[in-house]
Amino acid sequence: MARVSQEHLDARRRQILDGAALCFARNGFHATSMQDVLKEVGLSAGAVYRYFRGKEELIEAIVAEVLDDIRGVFEAAAEQSPPPPPHELVGEVLGNVLDLKPGLADGAKSYYPRLMIQVWTETLRNDDLSGLIREGYIGVRAAWVRVVEGYQEAGMMSSDVPADHVARTMIAVAQGFAAQYALFDDVAVDMLQNGLRGLVSMDLPS
Amino acid sequence: MARVSQEHLDARRRQILDGAALCFARNGFHATSMQDVLKEVGLSAGAVYRYFRGKEELIEAIVAEVLDDIRGVFEAAAEQSPPPPPHELVGEVLGNVLDLKPGLADGAKSYYPRLMIQVWTETLRNDDLSGLIREGYIGVRAAWVRVVEGYQEAGMMSSDVPADHVARTMIAVAQGFAAQYALFDDVAVDMLQNGLRGLVSMDLPS
Repeated sequence: MARVSQEHLDARRRQILDGAALCFARNGFHATSMQDVLKEVGLSAGAVYRYFRGKEELIEAIVAEVLDDIRGVFEAAAEQSPPPPPHELVGEVLGNVLDLKPGLADGAKSYYPRLMIQVWTETLRNDDLSGLIREGYIGVRAAWVRVVEGYQEAGMMSSDVPADHVARTMIAVAQGFAAQYALFDDVAVDMLQNGLRGLVSMDLPS
Repeated sequence: MARVSQEHLDARRRQILDGAALCFARNGFHATSMQDVLKEVGLSAGAVYRYFRGKEELIEAIVAEVLDDIRGVFEAAAEQSPPPPPHELVGEVLGNVLDLKPGLADGAKSYYPRLMIQVWTETLRNDDLSGLIREGYIGVRAAWVRVVEGYQEAGMMSSDVPADHVARTMIAVAQGFAAQYALFDDVAVDMLQNGLRGLVSMDLPS
C-alpha cells in the first residue's frame, strides 16, 4: 500500500472543500447534490467520503471556514493604530472579503458574498453553526468597539454615543454591501467608500 | 354547489400565504415540505392546490410579496419632505420592516428579517425572482437618491459625493442591520439609530 503524506491528504481535503464551495456558491446548499460536488472536484465518491461522511459534514466544514475567514478579515482590519476613518476601514474589509479565495469567482466577480449570504441562512437552521456565527459576531464587535473608542479618544466622535452601537452599524454597512454585491451587478468597493465618506462628513442642523 | 365569494377566496389565499411564510421563515424554503405547510394552515392538500400548483409557485408568490412590501417601506420613508436625517430615516425603515406582518413572529421577535435573508438567497437561483429584486433595488435607489440630493441642497452634505453611492450605503445599513436582527439576539432599532447618528456626527481630521 502506497504511503500517503499528510501534505497530500491536506491538499486533497482542500480540493474537495474548494470545489464544494464553488458548487454551493452557485446553486446553494440544498440544490447542490453530492453528485454535483464529485463532478466539480473530479474525484470518486470513495475518495470524497474518506474525508467527509456526507453533504452535511461538508456543509458544516465550509460554513465554519467562511465564518472564521470573515471574522479574521474584520478583526485584522480593526488592529490598525491609529484606526483609519470609517469609510476607509469598512471599504478595506469589503475589499478583503472579495479577495478571499480568488478561485471562488465567476470571471472577475467574486462569489464569496453569494456564499456568505447562503452561510447566513444555513446558520438559522443549525444550532452549532448558529453558535459559531454568534461567537464570531461577539469577537468582531469587541474589536470594532476598540476602533470606535479610538475615534472618541481622538475627539473625532462624541463619547456620549455607545461605541458598541457604532461598531454594529459599521459592521452592518459591510454586511449590507456584501449582500448588494451578491444580489446585484455593478456594486463596487469605492461606492461604499464614497457613500460612507459622504455620511461621516455630514453637517446635521443643530 | 355553494357560492364562494371573492372575499372568501382572497381570505383563503391569504391564510395559505401567511402560514407558508411562517414555515419558510422558521426552516427555510428547502427544508419545508408541502406537508409542513398543510399542517400549519390546517387545510387539505386539495384546498391548497386549488390556489397554488405546488411549492415552487408558493415560494415565488411569497418572494414577490416580500420584495414588494420591502420596496414599499423604503420608498414610503423616502417621500417625507424635508427628509429626516439618515439615522432617523434608516431607523424608521428597519422599524417598519419589523412591523410588517405582525403574525410572522416568534413571541416578541419579528421573523420578517429571517424570511428576508432567505428571500435573498432564493433570488440567486431563479432568474424571474432575480429580475424582481433588481428592479426593486433600482426603484429604491432612485427614491433614496432624491433624499440625498435633498441633504446636498440643504447644505448638509458636500455635493461632490455621488448621491447614488450615499443612497446605496444607507440602504446597506438597513439591510445589514436586518441581517444582524435575523442572525443574533438583542439587536434593536435604537442601536442602528445611535450608531448611525454617531457616524454622521463625526468630525474627520482635515
